[in-house]
Amino acid sequence: MTPADHRAPEADTPLRLTATGLAGDGTDPPRRLLAFVDSVLRGIGQVMLQNNAFTGLLFLAGLFFNSALFGWAALLGAAVSTAAATLLGAARSQIREGLFGFNGALVAIALLFFLKPDALAWSYVVLAAACTTVLMAALIRLFGTWKVPALTAPFVLTTLGFVLATARFGRLHSTGVLPTAGLPTAASVEGVVTAATVGTGLLTGLSQVFFQGNAITGVLFAVGLFLSSRSAGVAALLGSLAGLLTAWVLGAAEPAIRSGAFGFNSVLAAIALAGGFGPASTSYAALGAIASAVLFAALSAALAPLGMPALTSPFVLVVWLFLLARPLLRRVQEGAAA
Amino acid sequence: MTPADHRAPEADTPLRLTATGLAGDGTDPPRRLLAFVDSVLRGIGQVMLQNNAFTGLLFLAGLFFNSALFGWAALLGAAVSTAAATLLGAARSQIREGLFGFNGALVAIALLFFLKPDALAWSYVVLAAACTTVLMAALIRLFGTWKVPALTAPFVLTTLGFVLATARFGRLHSTGVLPTAGLPTAASVEGVVTAATVGTGLLTGLSQVFFQGNAITGVLFAVGLFLSSRSAGVAALLGSLAGLLTAWVLGAAEPAIRSGAFGFNSVLAAIALAGGFGPASTSYAALGAIASAVLFAALSAALAPLGMPALTSPFVLVVWLFLLARPLLRRVQEGAAA
Amino acid sequence: MTPADHRAPEADTPLRLTATGLAGDGTDPPRRLLAFVDSVLRGIGQVMLQNNAFTGLLFLAGLFFNSALFGWAALLGAAVSTAAATLLGAARSQIREGLFGFNGALVAIALLFFLKPDALAWSYVVLAAACTTVLMAALIRLFGTWKVPALTAPFVLTTLGFVLATARFGRLHSTGVLPTAGLPTAASVEGVVTAATVGTGLLTGLSQVFFQGNAITGVLFAVGLFLSSRSAGVAALLGSLAGLLTAWVLGAAEPAIRSGAFGFNSVLAAIALAGGFGPASTSYAALGAIASAVLFAALSAALAPLGMPALTSPFVLVVWLFLLARPLLRRVQEGAAA
Repeated sequence: MTPADHRAPEADTPLRLTATGLAGDGTDPPRRLLAFVDSVLRGIGQVMLQNNAFTGLLFLAGLFFNSALFGWAALLGAAVSTAAATLLGAARSQIREGLFGFNGALVAIALLFFLKPDALAWSYVVLAAACTTVLMAALIRLFGTWKVPALTAPFVLTTLGFVLATARFGRLHSTGVLPTAGLPTAASVEGVVTAATVGTGLLTGLSQVFFQGNAITGVLFAVGLFLSSRSAGVAALLGSLAGLLTAWVLGAAEPAIRSGAFGFNSVLAAIALAGGFGPASTSYAALGAIASAVLFAALSAALAPLGMPALTSPFVLVVWLFLLARPLLRRVQEGAAA
Repeated sequence: MTPADHRAPEADTPLRLTATGLAGDGTDPPRRLLAFVDSVLRGIGQVMLQNNAFTGLLFLAGLFFNSALFGWAALLGAAVSTAAATLLGAARSQIREGLFGFNGALVAIALLFFLKPDALAWSYVVLAAACTTVLMAALIRLFGTWKVPALTAPFVLTTLGFVLATARFGRLHSTGVLPTAGLPTAASVEGVVTAATVGTGLLTGLSQVFFQGNAITGVLFAVGLFLSSRSAGVAALLGSLAGLLTAWVLGAAEPAIRSGAFGFNSVLAAIALAGGFGPASTSYAALGAIASAVLFAALSAALAPLGMPALTSPFVLVVWLFLLARPLLRRVQEGAAA
Repeated sequence: MTPADHRAPEADTPLRLTATGLAGDGTDPPRRLLAFVDSVLRGIGQVMLQNNAFTGLLFLAGLFFNSALFGWAALLGAAVSTAAATLLGAARSQIREGLFGFNGALVAIALLFFLKPDALAWSYVVLAAACTTVLMAALIRLFGTWKVPALTAPFVLTTLGFVLATARFGRLHSTGVLPTAGLPTAASVEGVVTAATVGTGLLTGLSQVFFQGNAITGVLFAVGLFLSSRSAGVAALLGSLAGLLTAWVLGAAEPAIRSGAFGFNSVLAAIALAGGFGPASTSYAALGAIASAVLFAALSAALAPLGMPALTSPFVLVVWLFLLARPLLRRVQEGAAA
């Protein structure tokens, strides 16, 4: 995607309803507001790579079911980062696809997960959401060289930056959810994995994409995915299973497996890498999902001295590398293009 | 900038005095020495992105006013890295603009700030300054793909490398200025910000670009900037103010605000992003200056377990991202091009 | 190297013996197996950048001389990553040059150096070796933009990831060789460097490339190098000396110098940067070898809070930067091209 592409005049198609939400743009204020709301909902859908406003609505329903705070946070974050993209003059088509909303939504949830929600914290959220817009544009341009998407990297980098900064800023207060900074030590096997662990973990693997450890929320997310794409829904569930099984076999702690901690990166990696046919393509997506679970363990340990969470950094790194490599791997590429 | 550009034969214009220093090149040894000295002074000016030998002289005056050691260090570092560029055959035009001097100057000051200045330490400085030349060429080539400048990244990376290495090298001795390695903890508000804090911090924000916590040095630096470009001078002062206010509002410690610690990255970011017109372009530079102060807090905390300072890494990262993003943000780009 | 190059049909030349091993490809199963074994041996030779099956055999001999475990690990790792490249459809010519073997070999040795070799650990090795194949393809594509090789980056990243992950996986057990995680502290000079230190360290600098601290293994490795290229052999020995002397002068601990810890990155950097003529080119390679030793100290300290080793990351970073910079440094480039 070159800068020239972005500056090309965009067709001003009138607003109309489609299977993925509203399409086109409004010309009068009420229709423009509708188009904006549609962009925000698509942004929430894009958290799991779905350009679909109805999927976004179901994700929102899942959030509000578990916690109104995070529902509002997602709406505010997506709205701020989408509005910032409009004000700065980002490509209209990308704004309408929700590409400038999902990182804002996630940053807002993350910051209000880790920081007490007073007025200063909400202002901090607005600043951070606006920063994700710049980061998104920067990464679209950087990775455009290799035609690799930015994924949730703006969310990961902005969240780590804004949460780490609170170690120097005395007026922002932690919720106590952050792990205490400490040096990594050897693990031992904790707890016993049962059928309940697997059943719950499968669904919380989906809900943890939005920081929610709630199986019902996971079901609503799955419905949202299937609504948008059957293959995305199947990939998400299989990805969650792959992450869970990898963690179980290697001896991860049972509470972490049940909470979906080892699943959410694998869910996202599977959705991003799915879609091909044939054994090479399928094995490739499976390898990506497994590698995401291992890398989640690694990056959690790597960030332990800072007391920071890995967030979706394993998904981002694995999918970047697997997409970069794919054009050089003929059998996978053929499956993906099929 | 492609390699071909660099190898094109460069016009050998005779040395003459201009408003920014000497221009052209000398053909006999005394004139070549003059041209070299001019390159070194421009290099010191480039620490704040000014290709101006007189600005470099004022920066040097500010350094010597506060400490002769750092004045000599800056001269030696800029001379070594500029000479290394000449010996290795870097592009003459870039050498004459001071592009191979500023990282050497900063590395020399930084190493002699953190290490006791014995003979081995001075040799270590020479080695490090030569390394910045290679790093500068590497980053010019790497970022040439996106037409983004290397900024002070060679300084940051070389300094972190050479200071961290002393944890394994027993003959290099720390000055005790380095923070003790420790795990980051939550901050509380320390001290009360007064008018004196703001007045001093505004100026030390400039002087800290060269590791000097001295308001008069800051004044000399400001004069140097205004001499080269009024907009650079205004941007530097507003950037320092933006960094200081961000830190104050969020509850940073008063002594850190007064010392200019939260200002110097914002100063550099504002100079680098300034120059456009209209509200989008101005807001963009302001957002960059604010983000630099937040990122300074974050990277200070991130480097705490290593006992390392953040240096100008927040400026480098923020400006890279903001320049990468700009061509995709139509309203900012139009303001910048106006 | 563009994706198109990789998908071009490759000449199916019949298998025949050459000075560097078997060339061409087999058409019937026994000959295809021979070609595969040749690819694996070249992969082991590529650990020191030599596309030579006989060199690979001598490296293997050096490994088995010191420890059968690591000999088998290298064979398994190289075989798995080479087979994965074939199954995924990587470029046949690159597979035959051993480019998909060396990272697998090193990852297998590293993981069995740090983890107790039970059945789960061996399975973990197989997974990690397969991951290096994807990483290699990803980095070939990423760095193809600047025509810079991936070097051992896939090994470094995969090993750090898979070893760090054991902090969360209770069924993988450490051998106790990993340093305990701790915050870096100032060094003091330990022990006295004698002629024995220098003589041993010169050879262990070579053997440590494969995690072996054995001078005889170092001799076998040197023979393997000279067999492939006299200039590579000379560069390796001079590189080892440069690393050792840098560490000695700066005051590194004598046991570390004797073990070759400060040599192996300089060995690899010297081999990678050697081959040019003239003082600029030679000084450039020497600077790279010296910088690698300093960066080894730095990255060892940087990874101390995680209890992780620096591996060959200093070599990778220094050579990337020095190769990136070279086309902009006319005098070095002319020497390299001569």
